[in-house]
Amino acid sequence: MVLASRIVLLAALCASFALCSTFPPEPTRTDWYTTKLDHFGLFDSRSMKLRWLEYDGYVDHSKPKAIFFYTGNEGSITNFWANTGNQFVLAKEMNAVVVFVEHRYYGKSLPFGDKTSSNPHNYEWLSSEQALMDFAEFLDDYKKSNPEYKNAPVVTFGGSYGGMLAAWMRIKYPHVIAGAISASAPVALFRDISDQYAYNKILEKDYTCAPTLAKGQLEILDLGRSPAGLSTLTNIFKTCKPLKTVTDLMDAISSALAYGAMVNYPYPNSFLTPLPAYPVTMMCDKAATAAPGTHHNVVAIQKAINVYYNYTGSAKCLDVEGSPTPNLGAEVWNIQACNEMVFPTGSDGGLFPKEEFSYSDYARDCRKQFGLTTRPDHITHMYGGRRIGVGNIVFSQGSFDPWTAGCINPEDVAHDPTLVVVRIEGGAHHLDLRTPNAADPQSVRDAREVERREIHKWIGY
Amino acid sequence: MVLASRIVLLAALCASFALCSTFPPEPTRTDWYTTKLDHFGLFDSRSMKLRWLEYDGYVDHSKPKAIFFYTGNEGSITNFWANTGNQFVLAKEMNAVVVFVEHRYYGKSLPFGDKTSSNPHNYEWLSSEQALMDFAEFLDDYKKSNPEYKNAPVVTFGGSYGGMLAAWMRIKYPHVIAGAISASAPVALFRDISDQYAYNKILEKDYTCAPTLAKGQLEILDLGRSPAGLSTLTNIFKTCKPLKTVTDLMDAISSALAYGAMVNYPYPNSFLTPLPAYPVTMMCDKAATAAPGTHHNVVAIQKAINVYYNYTGSAKCLDVEGSPTPNLGAEVWNIQACNEMVFPTGSDGGLFPKEEFSYSDYARDCRKQFGLTTRPDHITHMYGGRRIGVGNIVFSQGSFDPWTAGCINPEDVAHDPTLVVVRIEGGAHHLDLRTPNAADPQSVRDAREVERREIHKWIGY
Repeated sequence: MVLASRIVLLAALCASFALCSTFPPEPTRTDWYTTKLDHFGLFDSRSMKLRWLEYDGYVDHSKPKAIFFYTGNEGSITNFWANTGNQFVLAKEMNAVVVFVEHRYYGKSLPFGDKTSSNPHNYEWLSSEQALMDFAEFLDDYKKSNPEYKNAPVVTFGGSYGGMLAAWMRIKYPHVIAGAISASAPVALFRDISDQYAYNKILEKDYTCAPTLAKGQLEILDLGRSPAGLSTLTNIFKTCKPLKTVTDLMDAISSALAYGAMVNYPYPNSFLTPLPAYPVTMMCDKAATAAPGTHHNVVAIQKAINVYYNYTGSAKCLDVEGSPTPNLGAEVWNIQACNEMVFPTGSDGGLFPKEEFSYSDYARDCRKQFGLTTRPDHITHMYGGRRIGVGNIVFSQGSFDPWTAGCINPEDVAHDPTLVVVRIEGGAHHLDLRTPNAADPQSVRDAREVERREIHKWIGY
Repeated sequence: MVLASRIVLLAALCASFALCSTFPPEPTRTDWYTTKLDHFGLFDSRSMKLRWLEYDGYVDHSKPKAIFFYTGNEGSITNFWANTGNQFVLAKEMNAVVVFVEHRYYGKSLPFGDKTSSNPHNYEWLSSEQALMDFAEFLDDYKKSNPEYKNAPVVTFGGSYGGMLAAWMRIKYPHVIAGAISASAPVALFRDISDQYAYNKILEKDYTCAPTLAKGQLEILDLGRSPAGLSTLTNIFKTCKPLKTVTDLMDAISSALAYGAMVNYPYPNSFLTPLPAYPVTMMCDKAATAAPGTHHNVVAIQKAINVYYNYTGSAKCLDVEGSPTPNLGAEVWNIQACNEMVFPTGSDGGLFPKEEFSYSDYARDCRKQFGLTTRPDHITHMYGGRRIGVGNIVFSQGSFDPWTAGCINPEDVAHDPTLVVVRIEGGAHHLDLRTPNAADPQSVRDAREVERREIHKWIGY
């Protein structure tokens, strides 16, 4: 009996404080939802299937209930489930069923299965509007199939692109969604409504070793101009193949610095790739160990990005052609980025070599790569950018996170007290959504409390 | 000087009370707006042009301004301009510029010009979503091109399908639209959320001679079973061609009764076709003049519908294949009706022969006629049906109008005091939008006053 009690106590602690490795709990249901391939055309009646996950272990069936709905984004839904623990903490308190629906074209929700990526035209139905309509129809059908949730208010949760979708679900489907937790969502990182340099300025501030990293990149560009220089770089970075240009290497560097800052969480995690606590600190610490010498700054960069690409030490070489975010659907995202998610992120030279963002070059490259049309103003027309016309949304953002450059500012929502901007000092990318952790700074605890109180209001808890 | 004063006085009266035949005023600008043919796909970069009209004669450029925007619907925008006079009365009072944008695929806004109707697949981009995005982008661009209206709140106006669009603009683009006057808009006349018989029950109540008209139709069906009977009908109705079946005749009868009630205005007008004041009264009066005899009830119908089809007396015969609404784009509307505007309007036998609405028959016929897919729940998923999640909308409805069957009820909006349902006793289809007239009943004067007061609140007038 003593042993059993301990197990029960441990389970209760896990559920209450979400401190266990088994948290969030496993889904109580994994299923497929049939949706239309094209919600907006007249002639295409084909359908496709979306994967979805449910956890109803916190629901007291005798009480009014809520639905806490994660708006799946650019990756496997199971990865977002594992990295969005605070939604479960709140669900337990507020008698909510937890539902995660995978975004079309990501994870296992591929309309043409393995053949989806064989032809760019298969992606004709990949867009935020199609995804939002999937979610709206799913929720109407879910309530119809589960009458006990018929009157349950729905709260959306999401981070990054998922946070954009969470907010946009509330904005576009206010008859379905009672409120939204929109974490680190760059809903305003679009033409004319954000400073194109802001994203990289935040990164520059994040890296105390930015001057070294900036100098090193200029030296790399210089070395890239000769076969001998490329050979030197191949040796320094231990690239898997001899470098023929520095393009992929430069991309790998900017990715490591950007993603490293995004997931600069206060504890080790594998959200994007296995990383230590506060990887940015470690990256600059490692950069500082570069021995003085001819290529000092270049070696510093190698040491820094090695934290990002090889923290486990298992990589034998640096694959500059590989994806920096194996847990996300980066290939598919590139299509969305080319079509509608056109984030202007130029560099003023502080961390990365100076480069103005060019809409025409961007559109040309997209046309070349996928044959598709770039619509830089579409999102702002469709969802409003900084103009938020519906209430009941919390926009959270971390001061460390480069995506904060495109987040909603307090002055954007001053007209409506039910729209709340929460700034998390020192916070990285949607840290607030993650499972509470003993290493969390006070700022994120406060943010979660704001979110909790707002949800109380929305669902009348 | 006396003459001139009289002219000035008359002009002032015209503008103030909108009682003159020159009201509404002529547009001060007629132009074309280039929009994307497809707002939602990735690969199609073609564009098309929408006709739009503007009147800025009421704008005092030294004061804060508003934009009163008519959401064009299924017809030529000039016809809606001519029949939406109250919008101009309000614009004059509230310092607003008046803008009417034509709906894609109607009037002169045809993406493929004269060839548009040559192939059903040319209508791939005809939908409410595409039209709303046209309007949203138009307004963003209009404000950019006219900086004096940059901060001007936008109020949408529309009747019938245009009223649906006016409401949906506010629901879907709350960052663009401050409020909406949604007149006689059957936003809830869809599967599962309205009584399929309600539309025809209102018509039955409208026609005091309904029992005669109902009996006559059963007799027509009976006569249609034999060549001799068809010959009798050809003679009674003076059809342009000898009848081979009664299908088109029955359609012509139900159209005349439905449209006659819709435009049962208290003064003569030509909105759909030239008609007298209160045509429904005249239709039943004429029916009562049918001489007793074998086909008394059939003759009564002929006399009734002759008011609708031949009020001017210029028609030499009844063209049962012609359009009952020459001023609307009925052919194009059929495509929208087949695809997304699936109104379930069955008959319980009170006015028309008993017939349950069949979604499967409807979808089959649409597939056969246009090859397209019928989506009976799409509108409800997309816009919410009776669930209105955004405030600042007036939903008006006339008790005489059959479309009131699908309008928003007061209990649907009890949760939000900024959503107002106005019922116009004795009112026909969006009578409130029309130019004020001495013959107007008090109910519509009251409705216009409610709309005026709500707009004041929305635009902070």
